[in-house]
Amino acid sequence: MDEVAFHVPRFRVRRLPAPKLRKDPIVERWTIISTDRLGRPQEVHAEMPPTRLETCPFCTGHEHLTPHAIAELRDERGWRVRVVPNMYPALRPIDGAAHGGHEVVIECPQHEPSLANLPTDQFVFLLRAYQQRVVAARQDPRLVYPMIFKNAGADAGASLEHAHSQIVLLPRLPTVLCDEIAAGVAHQAATGRCIFCDLMENERKVGERIILESGRFVALAAYAGRFPLETWILPKAHASHFESISNEEIDDLANLFRQLLRKLAAGLDDPPYNYFIHTGPLTESAMPHFHWHLELLPRITGIAGFEIGAGFAINPVPPEQAAAYLREVQC
Amino acid sequence: MDEVAFHVPRFRVRRLPAPKLRKDPIVERWTIISTDRLGRPQEVHAEMPPTRLETCPFCTGHEHLTPHAIAELRDERGWRVRVVPNMYPALRPIDGAAHGGHEVVIECPQHEPSLANLPTDQFVFLLRAYQQRVVAARQDPRLVYPMIFKNAGADAGASLEHAHSQIVLLPRLPTVLCDEIAAGVAHQAATGRCIFCDLMENERKVGERIILESGRFVALAAYAGRFPLETWILPKAHASHFESISNEEIDDLANLFRQLLRKLAAGLDDPPYNYFIHTGPLTESAMPHFHWHLELLPRITGIAGFEIGAGFAINPVPPEQAAAYLREVQC
Repeated sequence: MDEVAFHVPRFRVRRLPAPKLRKDPIVERWTIISTDRLGRPQEVHAEMPPTRLETCPFCTGHEHLTPHAIAELRDERGWRVRVVPNMYPALRPIDGAAHGGHEVVIECPQHEPSLANLPTDQFVFLLRAYQQRVVAARQDPRLVYPMIFKNAGADAGASLEHAHSQIVLLPRLPTVLCDEIAAGVAHQAATGRCIFCDLMENERKVGERIILESGRFVALAAYAGRFPLETWILPKAHASHFESISNEEIDDLANLFRQLLRKLAAGLDDPPYNYFIHTGPLTESAMPHFHWHLELLPRITGIAGFEIGAGFAINPVPPEQAAAYLREVQC
Repeated sequence: MDEVAFHVPRFRVRRLPAPKLRKDPIVERWTIISTDRLGRPQEVHAEMPPTRLETCPFCTGHEHLTPHAIAELRDERGWRVRVVPNMYPALRPIDGAAHGGHEVVIECPQHEPSLANLPTDQFVFLLRAYQQRVVAARQDPRLVYPMIFKNAGADAGASLEHAHSQIVLLPRLPTVLCDEIAAGVAHQAATGRCIFCDLMENERKVGERIILESGRFVALAAYAGRFPLETWILPKAHASHFESISNEEIDDLANLFRQLLRKLAAGLDDPPYNYFIHTGPLTESAMPHFHWHLELLPRITGIAGFEIGAGFAINPVPPEQAAAYLREVQC
């Protein structure tokens, strides 16, 4: 995507060199040096400016404030979910090792900051949009991984209020996925089974960390959750790739996911949160040793020096207590 | 450390089960479930309450508001740096796999929030306190790693205003150190040299990422820095363990470190930041393949869904630009 000539009040469009992928010289840790996003050292800030409704670029009627849509999911009322290029992409389509993409998924046409407040059919549109974009990314052989994620609330990294999520298309496998897949391969080799299927079976047997269960999905408090009330959603039937989800599964997940977000919002007073989907790489077809899932991280505690320096998390809420609490919350 | 009977206004002392170390069931990722720190899910919050000077537990004259000091560094004026047990420890001395400790290093007797505002001799006291505590930790054969770190500012995780840092004593090697040491072992095997010595030599040759250099230390912008203006300080002479630092090195480091913090404060308008020391494990003596260093992370951008989900950082300031900027900042 080239820089295009359009303006949104708080943005200035500048031509800058392409961002770069760098590996730490010591450990296997990657950084995207993304000069498209912000400016000189003293200009960097992470605040979310207050939104003026008349200039919200994600509201219906303001489509001219964003680049042209890459995808739109519509019904008789008009578009319901709209996907546009990110104006300050972490990665862009270029030649070379930093080839990638960065898309914004606008989750609803009206101005609503909270995904939890949207009706179930809007969740169905959203999940279908994710699915469509991953299927489309498979057309580009240089793309390796589609990172679907959401930053909800300024403290979780959101820079615009209107409900939205993002997809970063990566030219290499993220380290977190490398580790999960390697664990899956080792478990498969040792037992012949999927490590996530085994985890889920064990959790359903034990029961104390289960938060919600539907016909096709389970939501559970992560055993070693890094954040208070960290929750994972897994499909019950083994599947490595999110984009293979069926329409029936989308309907079921839309319901369960909405219920979970509503419980969180009610139980924690609308906390900031992140979620992301871990799925099989674009370069692979069905994998017996990996199992796609969604990880939801409420961000009510910070990430401080100990956590970054040690790579250890500190979680002040035992996951069993978190699950019991969320099971009870009415919404 | 047992729960002791003392009270500070904003704390309630409660008896709770010991915190637990948990490994994620899929990947090599550890979490301390620390029920000493906070309470029920709906009570968790990460705000720093405003400090009332008359109740600051770290000010001289208020020593009765903290547990008894573990160590005090004094001169003719009284204590200059004071080390006390953390009242809400991430880990405590217990039997079993979660044995550890958690100390608070009070960096000055008077009420001063900013370490950068302290005189050089106070930095000397601080570095000596770190050294003494690591030497003391070596007496306990169950301790494996001393994580020395600082959270400066509420956005970097500080919960009290008065300048302080912390030491968490761990019964196992943090994953980040495992990775660094493994990289050092591999490089040593391949080249016969220390990977950090080679990195430093290369950076001094290239020059563009060097921020400060003294007789015995180098401060440089990390090549793949995760955060804008991420800076590493390394001793020029190879040394694996921080606690082997000489008095001459402490004096030299106190100067350089103070200058760096003052440049950051002046150049970024007193930003929140974390720093931590990566040093050789307590269970090892001098290692040819590891090199202690300090990592300083300004926290002017957040950690959001993409960073956590992928394990990739996004840094909007190229390290070369960060170094050039900090070299120029007057303070």
